[in-house]
Amino acid sequence: MNDKPLDRVCIIGVGLIGGSFARALKRGALCTHVVGCGRSEASLRRAVELGVVDSWSTSPAEAVAGADLVLLATPLSAMPALLSAIRPALAPQAVVTDVGSAKAAVVDAVIEAYGRVPPNFVPGHPIAGTENSGVDASFAELFDRHRVILTPLPETDRQALALVRRLWRQIGAEVSEMEVAEHDQVLAATSHLPHVLAFALVATLAEKSERQKIFDYAAGGFRDFTRIASSDPLMWRDICIDNSRAILDVLQEFRAGLDRLAAAIEARDGERIIEVFRDAKQARDQLIADRRKQTD
Amino acid sequence: MNDKPLDRVCIIGVGLIGGSFARALKRGALCTHVVGCGRSEASLRRAVELGVVDSWSTSPAEAVAGADLVLLATPLSAMPALLSAIRPALAPQAVVTDVGSAKAAVVDAVIEAYGRVPPNFVPGHPIAGTENSGVDASFAELFDRHRVILTPLPETDRQALALVRRLWRQIGAEVSEMEVAEHDQVLAATSHLPHVLAFALVATLAEKSERQKIFDYAAGGFRDFTRIASSDPLMWRDICIDNSRAILDVLQEFRAGLDRLAAAIEARDGERIIEVFRDAKQARDQLIADRRKQTD
Repeated sequence: MNDKPLDRVCIIGVGLIGGSFARALKRGALCTHVVGCGRSEASLRRAVELGVVDSWSTSPAEAVAGADLVLLATPLSAMPALLSAIRPALAPQAVVTDVGSAKAAVVDAVIEAYGRVPPNFVPGHPIAGTENSGVDASFAELFDRHRVILTPLPETDRQALALVRRLWRQIGAEVSEMEVAEHDQVLAATSHLPHVLAFALVATLAEKSERQKIFDYAAGGFRDFTRIASSDPLMWRDICIDNSRAILDVLQEFRAGLDRLAAAIEARDGERIIEVFRDAKQARDQLIADRRKQTD
Repeated sequence: MNDKPLDRVCIIGVGLIGGSFARALKRGALCTHVVGCGRSEASLRRAVELGVVDSWSTSPAEAVAGADLVLLATPLSAMPALLSAIRPALAPQAVVTDVGSAKAAVVDAVIEAYGRVPPNFVPGHPIAGTENSGVDASFAELFDRHRVILTPLPETDRQALALVRRLWRQIGAEVSEMEVAEHDQVLAATSHLPHVLAFALVATLAEKSERQKIFDYAAGGFRDFTRIASSDPLMWRDICIDNSRAILDVLQEFRAGLDRLAAAIEARDGERIIEVFRDAKQARDQLIADRRKQTD
């Protein structure tokens, strides 16, 4: 593995994640030419205007031709068709990676398109994002000190894995590896379930007749708690469907915990309530303390 | 009503809220002398050291003597005993107000102690706070542009109400009035339920065997979503018990919404999922847009 800049990187889906990856490549002079691919000419032109990509095409096959690395940064639902479209046009040595939030679904899509997971496909997932979407929301620092989880399979080529790992590290991310199933469980707990809860809460309150008054009196705690409910509905629909099993499993556990807490409130059982609150506060304070230690 | 500074304000419970109220009074030169009252000598001494109060006493009766205004800023569970203790020592013209998060419970506590709600008692609730507590966390700007809800009763004295309203306004808050029951319903939806959900989520995840991995991979969305789970367990236990009816009612509605969403995920019903997510995003984006307009 050498560290010289790549000649050509193709980014399919130049939105928040794809656009930020491209910007970070350029910030680090890690690539000579970045080509963007997507369905909307207008946003691809915008990506060139912003200096995020050097050229663009709406044809995936055209876009990936000659690329050393292809980053798939589209919603999960677009991936099967996309994988089939790029297959004949990929250079033999090209490495393909993705940023999908549900890795089993990505692996399934690859198998559906290719009959197997090719050695040069490296499933990946950067744990970074904001509630905004689109290329205008992208920025080079999005991945700085953020985690990227790679979920290589036994058949994954070590050199392909090394290239993807090196690029993310050069971009500023902390790269780790996990099994596909473990990734999906951890992300269901830490990201997907909170999104489901925030969406469900805001949607429930929005249906109430006192809706306006409720939102008028919402303070900072509510705004923080519901920030993720401003996320892209399309993307989160895909995640919910593609990681449904792991999400429903952890949702079940949450519901059991919530039911026990509701029963304690109903019974005005102060000791039981405070036990739950103390466990939560302790775990959450610890999480913040650990994070501070990491970034010190 | 005149606007000259008050001679003496007594703050019972010099923590985040009480301490910030005292600091804001001093910032605005709205009071000549602030006396603090609480159970811990150490934190009262600390409050003097920080310049938050001018003097202190651990005896509520002693502390309220000669005060023009008494602010009750203790946990709700302390209020019945406190109200009884201060009753004989209050000056006849003294106005008493509070900052409790559940107004029906405060009114009940007052009736329990006094047999009725005296005309000079003005129930109030500033919609402000952080996940931190204690006098060291207090700051004069806590209430700036934040809402304060007063829930006067038919028997509340108009002059007492006017004094409390004026002070909060001079401190920088936006004061509005609501009926007790409406306040409790709105706050259950917008503040109490989100806290219950955040506590329940973190406590549930903390019980899992993959706990460490889950928290290790928690990103910004999770940290924001769970910030309120770092709140004071004691205070939130009291709120859950004292506003249990309204909290359980809105929790019931939330659970019904969550169950429908879970069923849609189980059925991989993309259209239904996206409908919920879009409703939520639209309401949440609107809330943020409205808030920007207000503060412009």
